[in-house]
Amino acid sequence: MTAALPTEFARIAQYFRPLAGPGALALSDDAAVFTPPPGRELVIAADAMVAGVHFLPDDPPDLVARKLLRTNLSDLAAMGAAPLGYLLTVSVPRGTDEAWFAGFSAGLAADQAEFGLHLLGGDTTSTQGPVSLSLTILGTVAPGTALRRNGAQAGDDIWVSGTIGDGALGLLAAKGALPDPDGFLSDRYHLPQPRLPLGLALIGIAHAAMDVSDGLVQDLSHICRASGLSAEIQAAEVPLSPAARVANRLELCLTGGDDYELLFAAPDSAAAAIRAASRATCIAVTRIGTFRHGPPHVRTIGLDGNELSLGAGGWSHL
Amino acid sequence: MTAALPTEFARIAQYFRPLAGPGALALSDDAAVFTPPPGRELVIAADAMVAGVHFLPDDPPDLVARKLLRTNLSDLAAMGAAPLGYLLTVSVPRGTDEAWFAGFSAGLAADQAEFGLHLLGGDTTSTQGPVSLSLTILGTVAPGTALRRNGAQAGDDIWVSGTIGDGALGLLAAKGALPDPDGFLSDRYHLPQPRLPLGLALIGIAHAAMDVSDGLVQDLSHICRASGLSAEIQAAEVPLSPAARVANRLELCLTGGDDYELLFAAPDSAAAAIRAASRATCIAVTRIGTFRHGPPHVRTIGLDGNELSLGAGGWSHL
Repeated sequence: MTAALPTEFARIAQYFRPLAGPGALALSDDAAVFTPPPGRELVIAADAMVAGVHFLPDDPPDLVARKLLRTNLSDLAAMGAAPLGYLLTVSVPRGTDEAWFAGFSAGLAADQAEFGLHLLGGDTTSTQGPVSLSLTILGTVAPGTALRRNGAQAGDDIWVSGTIGDGALGLLAAKGALPDPDGFLSDRYHLPQPRLPLGLALIGIAHAAMDVSDGLVQDLSHICRASGLSAEIQAAEVPLSPAARVANRLELCLTGGDDYELLFAAPDSAAAAIRAASRATCIAVTRIGTFRHGPPHVRTIGLDGNELSLGAGGWSHL
Repeated sequence: MTAALPTEFARIAQYFRPLAGPGALALSDDAAVFTPPPGRELVIAADAMVAGVHFLPDDPPDLVARKLLRTNLSDLAAMGAAPLGYLLTVSVPRGTDEAWFAGFSAGLAADQAEFGLHLLGGDTTSTQGPVSLSLTILGTVAPGTALRRNGAQAGDDIWVSGTIGDGALGLLAAKGALPDPDGFLSDRYHLPQPRLPLGLALIGIAHAAMDVSDGLVQDLSHICRASGLSAEIQAAEVPLSPAARVANRLELCLTGGDDYELLFAAPDSAAAAIRAASRATCIAVTRIGTFRHGPPHVRTIGLDGNELSLGAGGWSHL
C-alpha cells in the first residue's frame, strides 16, 4: 500500500497537527507523553457538546470550537487551576466540508493563543447524527489548594463574578426569540469568558467555588449539598447586564444555563481581598447572599421580600 | 429550590459515582484533582465511539462500555504504559432507559476491576442522534521509555501479537454475514484484549510499536512514515485464528480494523527477549516481515511470492 491515506489522516495533518503542543508527539503516536510540572497537582475535566443541544446546528464552527474549549476552561477556573493542555474528539456527519474543519480549527487556534494551552491528542470520526464533540482539559494547581464545592461555611457570603443570565437570554436572542440590537446577549451565549485569573486569585481566599453552567440557583444548590448548608440569595443583588435588565426576565436569569461565571463562598473577613482580586483581574464580583446552617436548600428572596418559587430551578442537558 | 435534581445528576450518582476513584472527588466538583505518580511521565489518549460506526446500535451496553475502555487501554499498551484512570463523556438519546445505564456502568465496573483503573470524571448529556461516547485515558511510563512509532530501524523485524483479522471478521459475524458457530469472531469484535502486559514487557526491547486498530497494512504504513522506512510482510506469516482460516478472507484480515493487537519493530538480536516476554505474558507473538531502507511503502507478499494489491489498504472511521 502506498502513501495515500484516508480523509481522517489528511484532516488531522491539515487542521489539528498545527495545534499540537509539546508532548503531543505531532499527533503521530497512539498517545501523548508529557512530564507533569513538578510540585503541582493535576486538575482534569471533560465536557461534551452536541449540535442541537449545546449549540445551534448553524452556529459558526469557530465559535463552537471556542465555546467547547471555554466551557472546559471554566471548569479549571472554578478549581483555581492554570491551563496545561487538552484532548479533543470530533464526530461529524460524512460530507462535512473543509470549511467547517478550517473554521473549527481556527477557533481553537485563536483560543489556544488567548489562554496559553495546546492540543495534546484526540480522535476524529464520522457519525450518522449531529456534530458531537468532547473535550478533556488538563490544568495544574499547587498541592492542596484546589477550590472545591464542599468548603463553604455557615455565615460565608455568596459571591458571583460578572453578570448572570446573559447566557440563557443569549440563546433566545440567537434563536431570534429576543431582541438583541447590539448582539451583546448572543455573544455572551456563543463566547463564554472563563474566569481563570479570578479563580487563581481566589485560592486561599474563597472557601468553595464552582462555575455557573446549569443555572445560578441549581448550581448554588450543589455547593449547599456538598457543604451541608442552606443558602439565601437576594434577587435584587444578582448582577444583571444592561441588556438583561431591558429583557426583564428575572426568573430565566436566575435559572438559565450557560453563564460560566464563578460562584463562590468566602467569609466576611475576606471581602477586601476579594475586591482586590476583582480589581487586579478586571473581573467584577458581587455579593448576593449568605450560607446558613440548615438542610441543602436555596431560598431566593424576591424584590418584595418574599421567597420566589422558581419551578424546576435549573437547567439540564440530559 | 429544594433538592430534587434533574435526571442527569441522579444518573451520575447511581451509575457513575460508584466507579469513581481517588482524585475524582466523588464526581461532585468541576474537575478531578490528583497527584501524578512521582518520577513517571504521563501518557494520555482519547478515542470516540459512535453507534452505527464503531459498534452496532443493538450491541449490549456492557460490551459497548468495555470495548470503549479497551480500545483506549490498547493505546496505552502500544506506548508501554500502565493504566492510571479515565474520563468519559456519554451522549444518549432522550428516553434511553435505566437498563442501558445499568448495563453500561456494569461493563465499566467489570473492566475497572480487570485492568486496575478508576473513573476520574466526565459528562452525560442528550443527543438527537445515535449514542456517542468519548473516553480519555491516562497512564504512566518511566521517563523516556514510551514506545513510539518513529524508532524502527532498517533491518528490524516486524512483529504482531495475537491473531490478525478477527475484529473485521467478527463485525461480519455480528451482522450475521459470516458463520460464527462458537461466537469466537463476534467476541473478538466486541471485546478486544488490550495487550498491556506485553507492551510493558517490550519497553527497552522494541524499537517502535503501535496498536492495530485501522488494519494491519495501513497501521504498518504509519510506522513506515514515522520511521522513514519501507516494510515487507509475508502474508503467509501473518497469524490467523482457526476461525479466520476457515473464513478464508485473507485480504480482509490484512486490511480490516478492530484487531487491537500490538505491531512492533525490533532488531533480530531481540528475538529471544521478545519470545521470553511472550511466554511471561501468555500473549503469542509472530514475526511477519522486515523493515528496509526506502520510501514509506508496505509490500505484502502473497502465497505465490508476488506482491498483493490491497486496494485502499485500510479502514477509516471518518
